[in-house]
Amino acid sequence: MKKHNFYAGPSILPQYTVDKTIEAIREYEGTGLSLLEISHRSKEFDQTMADAANLFKDLLSVPSGYSVIFVGGGASTQFFHVPYNLLQTKAAYLDTGAWSFKAIKEAKLFGEVDVTASSADKNYTYIPKDFTIPQDVDYFHITSNNTIRGTEILKDYDSPVPLVADMSSDIFSRPVDVSKYGLIYGGAQKNLAPAGVTFVVVREDILGKVDRPLPTMVDYRTHIKKGSLFNTPPVVSIYSALQTMKWLKNLGGVEAMEKMNIEKSNMLYEEIERNKLFRCTVPDPADRSRMNVTFLMKDEYQELTSAFLAFASERGMVGIKGHRDAGGFRASLYNALPLESVQALVSCMKEFEAKN
Amino acid sequence: MKKHNFYAGPSILPQYTVDKTIEAIREYEGTGLSLLEISHRSKEFDQTMADAANLFKDLLSVPSGYSVIFVGGGASTQFFHVPYNLLQTKAAYLDTGAWSFKAIKEAKLFGEVDVTASSADKNYTYIPKDFTIPQDVDYFHITSNNTIRGTEILKDYDSPVPLVADMSSDIFSRPVDVSKYGLIYGGAQKNLAPAGVTFVVVREDILGKVDRPLPTMVDYRTHIKKGSLFNTPPVVSIYSALQTMKWLKNLGGVEAMEKMNIEKSNMLYEEIERNKLFRCTVPDPADRSRMNVTFLMKDEYQELTSAFLAFASERGMVGIKGHRDAGGFRASLYNALPLESVQALVSCMKEFEAKN
Repeated sequence: MKKHNFYAGPSILPQYTVDKTIEAIREYEGTGLSLLEISHRSKEFDQTMADAANLFKDLLSVPSGYSVIFVGGGASTQFFHVPYNLLQTKAAYLDTGAWSFKAIKEAKLFGEVDVTASSADKNYTYIPKDFTIPQDVDYFHITSNNTIRGTEILKDYDSPVPLVADMSSDIFSRPVDVSKYGLIYGGAQKNLAPAGVTFVVVREDILGKVDRPLPTMVDYRTHIKKGSLFNTPPVVSIYSALQTMKWLKNLGGVEAMEKMNIEKSNMLYEEIERNKLFRCTVPDPADRSRMNVTFLMKDEYQELTSAFLAFASERGMVGIKGHRDAGGFRASLYNALPLESVQALVSCMKEFEAKN
Repeated sequence: MKKHNFYAGPSILPQYTVDKTIEAIREYEGTGLSLLEISHRSKEFDQTMADAANLFKDLLSVPSGYSVIFVGGGASTQFFHVPYNLLQTKAAYLDTGAWSFKAIKEAKLFGEVDVTASSADKNYTYIPKDFTIPQDVDYFHITSNNTIRGTEILKDYDSPVPLVADMSSDIFSRPVDVSKYGLIYGGAQKNLAPAGVTFVVVREDILGKVDRPLPTMVDYRTHIKKGSLFNTPPVVSIYSALQTMKWLKNLGGVEAMEKMNIEKSNMLYEEIERNKLFRCTVPDPADRSRMNVTFLMKDEYQELTSAFLAFASERGMVGIKGHRDAGGFRASLYNALPLESVQALVSCMKEFEAKN
C-alpha cells in the first residue's frame, strides 16, 4: 500500500532526491566509485559543494555580503554555535516553543539573555505580537516555525539588531527577504536532505565581534574561508540537498512552493474546522503553521484519539501522532509532500467522522 | 574499468554496506518509506541505533562501565569536545602529525597543554618512543594512526591517566584493549560509514569532573543518557555503519581484519622496498601504518612522480596521490580494500619500474 509520509523530520523528500541519491551511491558522476566512498577532495565533489552553495543562494536570492555554508551536526549544535560566535554581552530571544526554549538555555552559557516575548503562558499555541525588539542586544533570535505546537512566523521582522532565525522546518517553503537577517540556520532533515547536515547563511560583517576565543570548528569564518571543506563534510547529505534544490528550482522555486504549501495547509485546516470531531491546536489562523498542522479531538471525542490513529494508519498514513508534549495529531506538510497525501488524510478524517 | 579505491577518506566501504544502504534507501525495513525519510523516533530506527551500539561493543569487546555513542560532525569537532568535557587544568598530548597538532590547538583553549613528545622534528615520519606519560594531567591524548605521513601506534599504551585516542583512521583494523582507554573517538568515513557521524567510546566515570558549564550538545552525558537520540542523529551514516559492522563480524571480526591488514600492508611495503624507483616515507618498519602506506620516488627518480600517477590512474588506481603536505604517494588500505587492489597496485609499480 502507498504510504503517506507525515513525519515531522526526518521526513518526506522528493522522489527525485531519493532516486538521484541511489544512482550516485551506485556510481557517482562517472567516477567508477560510490558516493559513499568518494573523497571530499575529489574535483567531482568540489563541484557538488560549489553547486549546492550557489543554488542555495539562487533559490533564496541571497544578497552579496552573505555566505552559505554546510556543516556537520544539526540545529541543536547551532543553539550553542550562534551565541559562541555572536553573543558578546546580551542577546534577545523570542520564546515560541520547545526549540526556542532550548536555544535560550544554550545562549545563557555565553551571556545575558533577554526573553523579549514568550507564548509559554498558553502552551506555545500562538505567536507573540506586541513586542519591541531591544536595541541594546547583539542579536535577536527567532524560531520561524515551531514543529511541536504548529505555529509559524510567516513574515520577515524588521530588526534594529542582527536577526537570527532557526529555519530548520520551513526553509524553502516561502520566499524570505534574506537582507533582513543576520544569520539563518537549520538542520536539513525536513525540507532538504537526510539528517546530518546543517546550513548556515550569514552576513559576514556580523562575525568576529566577540572577545572569547572560538574553537576552530565553532567559528563560522573557518567554514566560510574553506568553502565548507575545512574538514570532511557530510558528503551524502550535501549531495541529496543539492538534488532537492534542483527539484525545487525546476518546480518554480520558493514562490511556487509557497503557493502549493498554502493550498495544502488550507485544505487540511479547512477540514479540521469543518469536521465535527476535530479542532485546531492553534486558535488564530494567522499563527498556524503551513509545515506542521497540529490538531486534537474535541473534548467530547477525546476517547477516539487512538482509534483515529489506528484508522489512519490502516489507510497508509504514517507519522500523524502528535508530539509527546502536545498529544493529538500532527501532519507535517513539507515541500515534498504531494497534495494527494493531504487529500488522502482529509478523506480519512471524513470517513472516520461518518463512522462516529 | 574496475577502479581500485585508495582514497584516504571518505574511502572504500564494503560492497555489502553499499548494497544494503541502497536497499534501505529504496525501502527501509518494510516500512514503505525510504531510509532518507524515516523518523529517528520510529521503532525501526530505534532498533538500528541500539544494534549499532551493541555490535560496536561486541566487536571491540568494550567492557562494562563504557558507553558507545554516535554523534553528528567529525573528529575535528571532537578536538574541542574532548577538552571541553575533560580538561580541568592540564592535559598531555602526543604530537604525531597534523591531526594531533590540530587537536592540541583546540585543547589550549581550555587549559594548559603538555606536549609530552613530538615527531615534528622529522616531519612526523616516526612515532616517538622514549617518553613518560605525566601523572599530573587530566588525560593523555594520542592519534593512533596518522594518515598524512603514514605512521601508526600499534599497541595500547599503559597510562597512569585516562588515555584518549583519536582512532578515526584505524578503528576496527585490529583488536584494541579498550580497558586501557578512557575515551576513543573517530570520524566514521574511513573504516565504517559515509562521512557525517562520529563514534565515541567513553568510560563513564571520567565524565562530569570539569567545573565549566557545558553546552548540552558538547556534554557526552547528554548523548549517553538518550542513547544517541537526544537530537536527530545522522540516520543514513548510522545505518551504513551498522552494515559495515555486520560485514566485519561475518568475516571474523577485528582479529580477522588484523590478519588481512598485515597481509595487505606487508605486500605493498615489500614492493616499495624492492622496487628500484620508490622508497618508504617512514624509515622504521615498526612505525609504518597498515592503513595509509606512504611512499616517494627515490631522489634520483623524482621527475617520474607525475608520470607514475598518470600511469597508475590509467590502470584504475584512484586516490594514490600523496597528501599536499607530504607529496609523493599514499595508498590507503582500509578494511574494505580487497587484496586484489593491492596486487593491482604492486603490478602497476613493477610494470612502471620495467619501463623506466
